[in-house]
Amino acid sequence: MPNAQNNRAPRLVAALPGNRMSGFTIVASQEKAGIRHRPNPIPMQTNSFHYSEQDGIARVRFARPDTLNSLTFKVYRDLTDLMYALRTNDAVRAVLIEGNGRGFCSGGDVHEIIGELMKRDVKGLLDFTRMTGELITNMRLLEKPIVSAINGIAAGAGAVIALASDFRIFAKEAKIAFLFQKVGLTAADMGAVFLLPKVVGLARATEMLMLGDSITSEEAYRIGLANKVVELAELESTALALSERLASSATMALGLTKRLINNEWNMDLTSAIEQEATAQALMLQSYDHKEFHASFVEKRKPKFEGR
Amino acid sequence: MPNAQNNRAPRLVAALPGNRMSGFTIVASQEKAGIRHRPNPIPMQTNSFHYSEQDGIARVRFARPDTLNSLTFKVYRDLTDLMYALRTNDAVRAVLIEGNGRGFCSGGDVHEIIGELMKRDVKGLLDFTRMTGELITNMRLLEKPIVSAINGIAAGAGAVIALASDFRIFAKEAKIAFLFQKVGLTAADMGAVFLLPKVVGLARATEMLMLGDSITSEEAYRIGLANKVVELAELESTALALSERLASSATMALGLTKRLINNEWNMDLTSAIEQEATAQALMLQSYDHKEFHASFVEKRKPKFEGR
Amino acid sequence: MPNAQNNRAPRLVAALPGNRMSGFTIVASQEKAGIRHRPNPIPMQTNSFHYSEQDGIARVRFARPDTLNSLTFKVYRDLTDLMYALRTNDAVRAVLIEGNGRGFCSGGDVHEIIGELMKRDVKGLLDFTRMTGELITNMRLLEKPIVSAINGIAAGAGAVIALASDFRIFAKEAKIAFLFQKVGLTAADMGAVFLLPKVVGLARATEMLMLGDSITSEEAYRIGLANKVVELAELESTALALSERLASSATMALGLTKRLINNEWNMDLTSAIEQEATAQALMLQSYDHKEFHASFVEKRKPKFEGR
Repeated sequence: MPNAQNNRAPRLVAALPGNRMSGFTIVASQEKAGIRHRPNPIPMQTNSFHYSEQDGIARVRFARPDTLNSLTFKVYRDLTDLMYALRTNDAVRAVLIEGNGRGFCSGGDVHEIIGELMKRDVKGLLDFTRMTGELITNMRLLEKPIVSAINGIAAGAGAVIALASDFRIFAKEAKIAFLFQKVGLTAADMGAVFLLPKVVGLARATEMLMLGDSITSEEAYRIGLANKVVELAELESTALALSERLASSATMALGLTKRLINNEWNMDLTSAIEQEATAQALMLQSYDHKEFHASFVEKRKPKFEGR
Repeated sequence: MPNAQNNRAPRLVAALPGNRMSGFTIVASQEKAGIRHRPNPIPMQTNSFHYSEQDGIARVRFARPDTLNSLTFKVYRDLTDLMYALRTNDAVRAVLIEGNGRGFCSGGDVHEIIGELMKRDVKGLLDFTRMTGELITNMRLLEKPIVSAINGIAAGAGAVIALASDFRIFAKEAKIAFLFQKVGLTAADMGAVFLLPKVVGLARATEMLMLGDSITSEEAYRIGLANKVVELAELESTALALSERLASSATMALGLTKRLINNEWNMDLTSAIEQEATAQALMLQSYDHKEFHASFVEKRKPKFEGR
Repeated sequence: MPNAQNNRAPRLVAALPGNRMSGFTIVASQEKAGIRHRPNPIPMQTNSFHYSEQDGIARVRFARPDTLNSLTFKVYRDLTDLMYALRTNDAVRAVLIEGNGRGFCSGGDVHEIIGELMKRDVKGLLDFTRMTGELITNMRLLEKPIVSAINGIAAGAGAVIALASDFRIFAKEAKIAFLFQKVGLTAADMGAVFLLPKVVGLARATEMLMLGDSITSEEAYRIGLANKVVELAELESTALALSERLASSATMALGLTKRLINNEWNMDLTSAIEQEATAQALMLQSYDHKEFHASFVEKRKPKFEGR
């Protein structure tokens, strides 16, 4: 597993003046219960969410449990900026998004967002919808795996954040609802219409998007939306173990895999196979692949460095 | 629920000379058993199928039970024209397609279509295949949800009509078969090769299209082709309840969702998210979204009008 | 079922000097156990794999059981050339790929391929990745159904060969693993990132491609990757029966279906429906469709000829 003090990959935070990363002010360590044996965490915090980095994993934990972690304009903006900043933060090799309290994320706050948008002109509305879309763009273009640990309701924009993640671990009691239609909006929001049919198929996506009903964790697993369903008490450890495994894998190759998973939906067979041929010819020269071969010959575990 | 006498949305039939809509002559009301509490239905009929409008729902019921509702040239043409005419019929906010007798729709009639096509020249054949494709195009471009209530066999073109619907409710005994291959034709018919892989995945679609075997309702549900499977006795009420729910929802937003579900398969991530941002900026200004917000503040149910 | 001595479709091998097809030298018949009642087989063999043609079915059986049928440069090249040569071999109407010993195919040999690639320059690496991609291209562009009978592990390139087949029959003990990531490579190899999300959906594909874990036959069936799971003792007969059924079907129409299944992922709805209209107008004039109609009128089974 990559070391946090890795010299090749200086932490972004160290490089920014005043230990400030975008809008995320570094504060005193706020150790979270249940995270044991993690030396030298560099926790960060904004009032938008709790943020920390540990052993190559950036943890983002929603911070508004009283409203089931509804989103405000500032939370949206900070999440969007974070996902962008992580692109160039080589110390982070996987991202874990977690709920807080009873919910994962209930989407745009009815008072702080929906009410405010009522007062906006056309430009103001498009500024908003483009910014929320930018959050999803930044998640999908981040060449690092994103794991969402879904503890409770993921609704509206919260459902899309879960959807744009690469892995979704559900607690048994968790639910997901693309409820845009219920509030008089189109479900074509933040890429939901782009992503959901590719995950659960055209018919189930149509149903979920047109009706906006809550889907149970069991159903989410059946239709391929949940990777795994676990007891709530095991959610954090399961999601963290997966994040650790991903962070210690050949992350440059993995980032390329993610990039092409995005891109090849719009390629024809021949172009896609040529794209993969060039990508793999590149990776065959990577340190990580050579490290695999050396470890195989030497009968030991490989130690990947993401380069 | 929108009222049939709604002034904003004059019925198309009222605007057409002689109460004629395309080929659908209005006849005396033919009340169907089991449809209770529906005041002021405006039933229409062609000998191609039974047609009625009730509370925003256009009901299309096949009318050739003796041949499991096989399609003739005229049924094809009338269905195609109906799906086109419904685009501009603001009184209709959802469509329900139903079988008749033992079957849903057995596809092109062996005698009246297959036999006749044997006599056609190249132009005549292409006229036919383009017209059948136009039916599916018109269904997919109709920005209103289409529910199919599948009571028995849906085969060949009947299977594609079911497939092009937005929702499919199966009776337990219903089956679906893309049997083109069995009659020596390609399964690339009326968009089946475009649609089915997006619903059930590439491998199951390949199997269904290359073999043409009947799929049971249970299997159709397992693979995501059936939204729900119910007892035959409950099929009509279940499909009607779904249609009513859809018809009373924010149908303009829903139509936009359907349009983008069609279009975004061929967009890249960035273009799709920009498309969704502009679509949602538009819908944030819609009456229905404002109505939702008002109803939320006033703690009452919203009353959507599809604008 | 088409006869092997069919005059319209001379065997490619007969047309080649010295009974040599590409690199496949014809050797003495090597009758395989369990293949009964197949008169006049014309077995061929390269040291790369066992090859035979029987009743319109080309059987390809891996030949390196000691290494779980790992691939060498020569096996790759010969398979690639075979899949290309079969395009114009009208005697072959379906292809069956089978494992040997305990495994199906374990992918690129660690010593004979991975070790050797370490010594190659950029051009040499791209030559390799393009050639492996060409194998998959040739399988997908072969307008004949390919059935894979997966008896044991299908890993790495072996998993992609299975994936690029049109049908996958799994023995209960069979497993499949896209393990590229585990060897420090991207899973974007030979079209895996193009194909797998279209078969099992975006989320499951992401998991399988990013983690590289083995999937059991039961799970492969659940997620739509296996068409069927059978007892190992029934694998050969099941896969052969399916191949025979496919070979005796209207194979020209079927080839067109396969071609369009490839192509329509990248078409919009309107273009796809026009493509299908022209394809079907063509097939309505085919011998096989007329034969169906004649057989229907005469109340007998149709005898398709693939034209």
